[in-house]
Amino acid sequence: MVDIELPFKTIELRGDHLVLLDQRQLPEKVEYVQIEKYKVVIEAIRNMTVRGAPAIGVVAGFAMFLASVEYSNLPEDGYFRLMSKAADELSLARPTAANLRWAVQRIRKIIEGNHGISIAKTHQMVKQEAEAIEAEDKELCRSIGEHGAALINDGDGILTHCNAGALATAGIGTALGVIYTAAFSGKKIRIYSGETRPVDQGRRLTSWELAASGLDVTILCDNMIGSIISSGKIDKVIVGADRIAMNGDTANKIGTLNMALIADHFQVPFYVAAPYSTFDPEAQSGADIPIEFRPKDEVASAENYVDIHGKIDIYNPAFDVTPVNLITAYITDRGILTSSELGAVLMRKAKNLNQVH
Amino acid sequence: MVDIELPFKTIELRGDHLVLLDQRQLPEKVEYVQIEKYKVVIEAIRNMTVRGAPAIGVVAGFAMFLASVEYSNLPEDGYFRLMSKAADELSLARPTAANLRWAVQRIRKIIEGNHGISIAKTHQMVKQEAEAIEAEDKELCRSIGEHGAALINDGDGILTHCNAGALATAGIGTALGVIYTAAFSGKKIRIYSGETRPVDQGRRLTSWELAASGLDVTILCDNMIGSIISSGKIDKVIVGADRIAMNGDTANKIGTLNMALIADHFQVPFYVAAPYSTFDPEAQSGADIPIEFRPKDEVASAENYVDIHGKIDIYNPAFDVTPVNLITAYITDRGILTSSELGAVLMRKAKNLNQVH
Repeated sequence: MVDIELPFKTIELRGDHLVLLDQRQLPEKVEYVQIEKYKVVIEAIRNMTVRGAPAIGVVAGFAMFLASVEYSNLPEDGYFRLMSKAADELSLARPTAANLRWAVQRIRKIIEGNHGISIAKTHQMVKQEAEAIEAEDKELCRSIGEHGAALINDGDGILTHCNAGALATAGIGTALGVIYTAAFSGKKIRIYSGETRPVDQGRRLTSWELAASGLDVTILCDNMIGSIISSGKIDKVIVGADRIAMNGDTANKIGTLNMALIADHFQVPFYVAAPYSTFDPEAQSGADIPIEFRPKDEVASAENYVDIHGKIDIYNPAFDVTPVNLITAYITDRGILTSSELGAVLMRKAKNLNQVH
Repeated sequence: MVDIELPFKTIELRGDHLVLLDQRQLPEKVEYVQIEKYKVVIEAIRNMTVRGAPAIGVVAGFAMFLASVEYSNLPEDGYFRLMSKAADELSLARPTAANLRWAVQRIRKIIEGNHGISIAKTHQMVKQEAEAIEAEDKELCRSIGEHGAALINDGDGILTHCNAGALATAGIGTALGVIYTAAFSGKKIRIYSGETRPVDQGRRLTSWELAASGLDVTILCDNMIGSIISSGKIDKVIVGADRIAMNGDTANKIGTLNMALIADHFQVPFYVAAPYSTFDPEAQSGADIPIEFRPKDEVASAENYVDIHGKIDIYNPAFDVTPVNLITAYITDRGILTSSELGAVLMRKAKNLNQVH
């Protein structure tokens, strides 16, 4: 087992406030923001100060703790009412990430289970649960990294998309967790990352965190995926996931579907690395996953397209859905699941819905 | 037949100088540059003040005329030597465009055929040949537009890539020539354009020229192609070509291969619109087409990726090659050619090599 310590912290609870590495400033500036109110966390999730499904889950847990700090001096009915309102608001911060609603739900259950117990005690349990979510996420990343690294050969060229790294989790990342684990255990790998328009998480974040951690990386524009895969340089594609339906259809950052279709054509294995909790029993297939459309000025600000006579529109979905038949396997904390194994494993998950979710 | 007059001029010879619409400034500024020396034209081709294979061909013809203006007072052997040097230099300005070398070659033949005739006469013939190349390009665009428009149905959603428009030719464009002809003959169409990283010709140029010409257009990032095609909004894809091998493999702006693979998966027809002269008898297949790699700072300038410890590299091919089996048909000035018809037609072309090239 490789012990991996990276030279930056994406999320940190310090006493009663939350410290986030401001991902909008990277790579030009390495700046941390300090947050004391859960409403500011919602804004930080919306404006992508913090992003990545697992990181959003961890941050949402801490946001519930911040709300608890804010409301713990209230009378019991006020505390419960406002905590419930905070949970509702947080759940809506970004519609696609399963982890967000899942983390909020975990804290909500603690609170709802504690009617009649002292608020001070509830508050303490909220903090413990939020810290447990963080600790579990670190362990999930470690485990995903270990399982996935076994798939990587010395000398492999690996293509990834967006940022499913340490910046997207509380740990070493999912897709990049696999890469870190393989690299730090001594395998020589070449890493390629798509730029990931329009927010450029690949160019800005993945390249920054890999380079900061001492690994080489080559950036390419998203439309160069066909070129690089057809050139034979890519042995494996590994991406993260924001939500996986029970049939295996996977919602991930826009452009993942492009990459999967191209990898499939050239018979390059395409892996999705994600915590087992990303499988969402409420989504039977990709059709059940709502896709968030984001503001047009993310793609081009007004001066970048000069909309003569109001003729120009912009299409900006934040995610797409890759169908299960394009996915070679899922690298999870519970091991590698192939599409064909998926059915039986998830059947058990659906039965244990109440325990897992 | 629709007579189409667009509200801007990409290339214009005014007396002894060349006027180019500066495409690096669009869409923010509509600025024209005036050029008197062929060496400045080479720079304008390299730095993409003018781009698009047909436009580069026309401009290269005019550049040879500018060289002739510059050298026509020299003694005969000096004139022929320096014109030959200018032709050599121009041919190397960008390696992928077939039209560049083809246009230069046409002028070179005029010059070489005129040894012993007066320089004044040769100079006049160079001008006529350059103007003929321009006039032919306009006519090619018109003809491609007419042939292609017949493929377009009222209500079609059409996706294009990069800029194969009036800004890329001396006429109404190739892929966009088809769109203009269909639209101005009364067909209602929805037009979508990929952003076309890293130079953003789709976002900057295609959206500008369509909107300036009164047509609606939707811009999307290149990695949203899978999303938009899978959504069912796209009925046809039409792109241009920089060079087409004799087997039909097509070199075009980077990202064309991505688009073709995705269109193929979703069974959306994929058309290449280009002058017949884009078929290059010297390239048997895509493997014979050299791909230009361009400077890294086109993808990201130094502050955009902050290369910690020299760990970050950038991959920036300007073109990719789409194999013939992904192309539904070629829309040329000689009509629509399907892949299966290609062999016989091009066999004749190869035989007539000396006449055509």
